Amino acid sequence: MEKVAILGGGSWATALVKILSENKAQVNWWMRNSQDVQHLKEYKHNPRYLSQVSFDLHYVKPSTDIRAVVASSDWVILAVPAAFVQLALADLPPEALQGKMVISAIKGMIPNENVLITDYVEHKYNVPNSHQLVIAGPCHAEEVALEKQSYLTIGSHDMASAERFCEMLRNRYVKANPLDDLDGIEYCAVMKNIIALACGIARGLNYGDNFQAVLVSNAMFEIERFLDAIMPIHRDLSGSAYLGDLLVTAYSQFSRNRTFGNMIGRGYTVKSAQVEMNMVAEGYYAVQSIYELNKKLQVNMPITNAVFHVLYERISPTMEFEILKDKFK
Amino acid sequence: MEKVAILGGGSWATALVKILSENKAQVNWWMRNSQDVQHLKEYKHNPRYLSQVSFDLHYVKPSTDIRAVVASSDWVILAVPAAFVQLALADLPPEALQGKMVISAIKGMIPNENVLITDYVEHKYNVPNSHQLVIAGPCHAEEVALEKQSYLTIGSHDMASAERFCEMLRNRYVKANPLDDLDGIEYCAVMKNIIALACGIARGLNYGDNFQAVLVSNAMFEIERFLDAIMPIHRDLSGSAYLGDLLVTAYSQFSRNRTFGNMIGRGYTVKSAQVEMNMVAEGYYAVQSIYELNKKLQVNMPITNAVFHVLYERISPTMEFEILKDKFK
Repeated sequence: MEKVAILGGGSWATALVKILSENKAQVNWWMRNSQDVQHLKEYKHNPRYLSQVSFDLHYVKPSTDIRAVVASSDWVILAVPAAFVQLALADLPPEALQGKMVISAIKGMIPNENVLITDYVEHKYNVPNSHQLVIAGPCHAEEVALEKQSYLTIGSHDMASAERFCEMLRNRYVKANPLDDLDGIEYCAVMKNIIALACGIARGLNYGDNFQAVLVSNAMFEIERFLDAIMPIHRDLSGSAYLGDLLVTAYSQFSRNRTFGNMIGRGYTVKSAQVEMNMVAEGYYAVQSIYELNKKLQVNMPITNAVFHVLYERISPTMEFEILKDKFK
Repeated sequence: MEKVAILGGGSWATALVKILSENKAQVNWWMRNSQDVQHLKEYKHNPRYLSQVSFDLHYVKPSTDIRAVVASSDWVILAVPAAFVQLALADLPPEALQGKMVISAIKGMIPNENVLITDYVEHKYNVPNSHQLVIAGPCHAEEVALEKQSYLTIGSHDMASAERFCEMLRNRYVKANPLDDLDGIEYCAVMKNIIALACGIARGLNYGDNFQAVLVSNAMFEIERFLDAIMPIHRDLSGSAYLGDLLVTAYSQFSRNRTFGNMIGRGYTVKSAQVEMNMVAEGYYAVQSIYELNKKLQVNMPITNAVFHVLYERISPTMEFEILKDKFK
């Protein structure tokens, strides 16, 4: 029986618990909120996310004790928002992740430090890249709950571990494939949230489907330029882990990044949009990290720059997109 | 004053007349239906498509006389459905297109003959490839009518003519770029209708957004393999003329190919779906042409094959997509 820790209680964490526990892994599920853990133990579902999913408590062990959860697992999946990784892991001693396989299901970077989750785990917890994996979509958690056919890509430098983890995920409605591009997949997952945010701004400014298609086309080139600068290996960017993941976010009506962007395009300030949504979209942090990183790289990134200017420098989205549209082909 | 013939009265033809005539080209507009021509002359709009667009009859000359329309023009734009090209041009003598620049705005192939429109024009009317252009999206005609920002790509072997035509199209809300890939753009425009049809079938079968994103990702590889086999030059398939055009169709709620596919997925027969829709989706012909062409090429084309089997060999879409989904990554 594989022993897996899942850290986080959101919809993506919940979907992963469903997949892994149905495949009879022992899932040690850490959540911060003790009421949620109590609810799970009593009613066998997460009260906050994907509540229709019922868990078999023979396989799923909810707990608020992160040390115990990690200690009793061989695989540790990080599934909290990027902005809360440091806080979530604060109770773990530095050696807690030694010898474990650590898997990031997070689509973001550590804010202000501008490092990937895998790099943070490597430096802070001394887990080498060869002991880390990333999970990439295209995958709405909601569709996993409905058991709709989904595809996951597991990025890694260690294809044997990636394949072993894929085997733990595969079932009737999930296909999983390993891919030898840990960093590329992780950066792409971060950037797609920026693009989804840009799509939302465009929609809020009353641009249409024609423009969005061109925006996504141009985004693919922007992502390619950035990845080639930061980690130049051959990639098929049309693959599910890159283009697929971008599409499911950029064309989703439910994407929080899109919704946030839409409000900005319609004239909300950043603060009022965040208050209204009662949360912060991941793309808000992502754009700052990528923008900062790119100060050194100096890659041509018109979409990232436009989103950054609008969110952090209070430049009018109307003006910024007037300039942006002239740069597209 | 540039003299342009537009052959066809559909929504895309109407959008092109708007763009060209607003730029003060003389647009000689051929439509088959004399009542529509009369209506246009009297009320200055097309009664059937984009009726909100009002034309300046100083620049727009509607007519049912195709010979006169072509004879008085230097540029001839074909904008009828692919299945009606032969019928529409039947009244033209073989030499009528000599010395003209012929531009295909058609996204399809000649049914049964399985040739591109540009190849048909070359062989039947002796117009060399160097005197031909193709117009590619991503571009809903409806958004042109609303003057939403749109991008067109003009494919050509003669970049000077392509640039000159781009200049005739450019305005406040239309950007146009020449691209040296006449055939690739034309084939891609044909294939995107097959993919949109496949997206519709998937939706009709109750597959979700996750699956569609993977379908589109895999479609990009399928298109790439086919283009590399039939016309191997370097292409950036993430470009607006390829990926962009595919996206605007595959994700459109209004795509006729998608709607048709959706009905097939929900269990309609081909005939009943066509009767219900009162028209034939272009992808229906396209898939037969590409499938036939591929008998010689033997490219790995699982999506095209699946759609062909469902539409022409009455194989159950449920079964066909069960097989297809196992081929995706």
